[in-house]
Amino acid sequence: MTVGVAANLDVTLSAIAELGALDQEAMAGARDHLDGLTKPPGSLGRLEELTVALAGITGRSGPSMARRAIVVAAGDHGVARRGVSAYPSDVTAQMIANFVGGGAAINVLAEGAGASLTVVDVGVAGQIAAPLSGGERGGRLIRARIRPGTADMTQGPAMTRAEALGSIDVGLEIVADLRASGVELVGIGDMGIGNTTAASAIVAVLTGRTPAAVTGRGTGIDDATYGRKVAVIERAIARNAPDPTDPVGVLATVGGLEIGALVGVILGAVAGRMPLVLDGFITGAAALLAAGLAPRVAERVIAAHRSVEPGHAVVLDRLGLRPLLDLDLRLGEGTGAALAIGLIDAAVRLRDGMATFESAAVSGPVEGGAQGEPSS
Amino acid sequence: MTVGVAANLDVTLSAIAELGALDQEAMAGARDHLDGLTKPPGSLGRLEELTVALAGITGRSGPSMARRAIVVAAGDHGVARRGVSAYPSDVTAQMIANFVGGGAAINVLAEGAGASLTVVDVGVAGQIAAPLSGGERGGRLIRARIRPGTADMTQGPAMTRAEALGSIDVGLEIVADLRASGVELVGIGDMGIGNTTAASAIVAVLTGRTPAAVTGRGTGIDDATYGRKVAVIERAIARNAPDPTDPVGVLATVGGLEIGALVGVILGAVAGRMPLVLDGFITGAAALLAAGLAPRVAERVIAAHRSVEPGHAVVLDRLGLRPLLDLDLRLGEGTGAALAIGLIDAAVRLRDGMATFESAAVSGPVEGGAQGEPSS
Repeated sequence: MTVGVAANLDVTLSAIAELGALDQEAMAGARDHLDGLTKPPGSLGRLEELTVALAGITGRSGPSMARRAIVVAAGDHGVARRGVSAYPSDVTAQMIANFVGGGAAINVLAEGAGASLTVVDVGVAGQIAAPLSGGERGGRLIRARIRPGTADMTQGPAMTRAEALGSIDVGLEIVADLRASGVELVGIGDMGIGNTTAASAIVAVLTGRTPAAVTGRGTGIDDATYGRKVAVIERAIARNAPDPTDPVGVLATVGGLEIGALVGVILGAVAGRMPLVLDGFITGAAALLAAGLAPRVAERVIAAHRSVEPGHAVVLDRLGLRPLLDLDLRLGEGTGAALAIGLIDAAVRLRDGMATFESAAVSGPVEGGAQGEPSS
Repeated sequence: MTVGVAANLDVTLSAIAELGALDQEAMAGARDHLDGLTKPPGSLGRLEELTVALAGITGRSGPSMARRAIVVAAGDHGVARRGVSAYPSDVTAQMIANFVGGGAAINVLAEGAGASLTVVDVGVAGQIAAPLSGGERGGRLIRARIRPGTADMTQGPAMTRAEALGSIDVGLEIVADLRASGVELVGIGDMGIGNTTAASAIVAVLTGRTPAAVTGRGTGIDDATYGRKVAVIERAIARNAPDPTDPVGVLATVGGLEIGALVGVILGAVAGRMPLVLDGFITGAAALLAAGLAPRVAERVIAAHRSVEPGHAVVLDRLGLRPLLDLDLRLGEGTGAALAIGLIDAAVRLRDGMATFESAAVSGPVEGGAQGEPSS
């Protein structure tokens, strides 16, 4: 990690404020180019919108998206001891070994998306075993553990404010490193047993919805566990009384270390005009926190998919984002982001690979609109 | 083309009738395999459903989908002279040259999907110019022109019943050839100026909806052209009075030659247990005709996307198909099918590439459900 770059939160927020609106000139250039390709204008729908959005975000009408990275932030949650997940906390560390070993879903999908995989331990509780096998598909592990999991948020804050800021800094540094190494497009994901509980708490606080309205079944919990999960979130919010106008305070009291790192990655990417693809509910909660710190975030990130977690639709609606995919995913890890990067790849290849009406000698629309012969 | 194979309609319909239901044993095998992979059961949502569907269709729990083909059927429409499209009929032949030359959207997307591209001229009106450039991405052209475009369906049948059956036979022969060459997955698409007019007429007749309810703006027509298009469809149906219980008759009177070929490709793929991916509205109309001939078609094809054509949602609803993508596409050519093949590719790679809980030493769900400590 590059330590000592100006990767701190205040500098980043100032940089985002200075970005202004999306680059209209680059977007117009992208639209003009698309309208010259051998297809009716706009007929590639959201793929054309993506191409225009990439121009607006980067400030270039035809930016390369060749170098791609997926960042998976991982952390454990003290609240997991309240029995809110179908899986034990040990799974967080075990899955990191799986990411490094190349056997997880995100390994397969990152490879398919042509993206490198970086896994960051911001706050895993357990020891990460050496992976059983390496392989080309394996991820790179960054050890940046701030503490071994959060505290149980039903008993007090999940972490201190300094730790929350530290987790954001980890994300800022990671994205600065990726940019320095030439990455042009980043997708984000999460790993952490118990983290839908934290994400639901964050989303409830920031949107004013009840915990029940934004809480789902995570990895797949039964009715009893679901009831406990909602009660735990209600208790954590009551105990900590987080101020919704203070995103860092919300992160510290009812959030998670991996969520903080994701906030940092999002803010760093937006500040650096690098297109960033969200994943599911956890990354959505991070985006909501990031947008609380810098409202322009919402127009400069790409929503990959709508997860089955009910809180995710609430997040997307609040951010004004329309997801590209709706595939009933609920895995996290950046799997939806990787699939969406496949669509971005398609959009860019169409932009760069299609013939124009002129080059292919194809006629354009009829001048003055279609004319019909009278029929008898 | 392999002429003389038993690729005729009656034999194919009998073969489909003998298939019976989807293969439950293969599907159970696929589900068992998926549940052993390092992810919560079902958490990959529709990608897991796809894997199970591929098993059910092929009768094998883990079928290879490595060899893929896209078939684009092309034909012209006499009704285009009534001014129902924004583009002149010349564009059909020009776009075929573009497909062969490698410059169209489907060339780019087929390459991305790892699929070969076969373009079949079943009934183009104009001469197909030599493409300006070839290239690796270029499609293979099959010349199987039954007649140079249909007749104007406002004046009588679009074609004879023999021509309609001939167009279906072309599709049956093409899919038989693809199967013989080892293709394991096929996507279909269309090209033909005026063909949303024919597709809307087919869908109106087969579903009993009014033409206005199933007619959209195709390549992008203005209000005056749209009004004319609806009136033209109403007139064609009134003039020909097609019998909705006779799909071949509907195809002959208000259909198109490329639509007939697509019916043949669909039926041949289903009969051969080959997974087939539909594209947008035109291929949907073909699927509706195919399902009219063999009801089991609906459970054995994959819907790629929902197009912006309002009639497409009607078709998908009638067939009971839930599309994988919803990207506001309205281009045709098989572009949506190619994108969906990308998702099928991801599903298969996950199926084959992920570690199991055992191999990766990852803990499964907590026995007997999650347990929480009492909190004070």
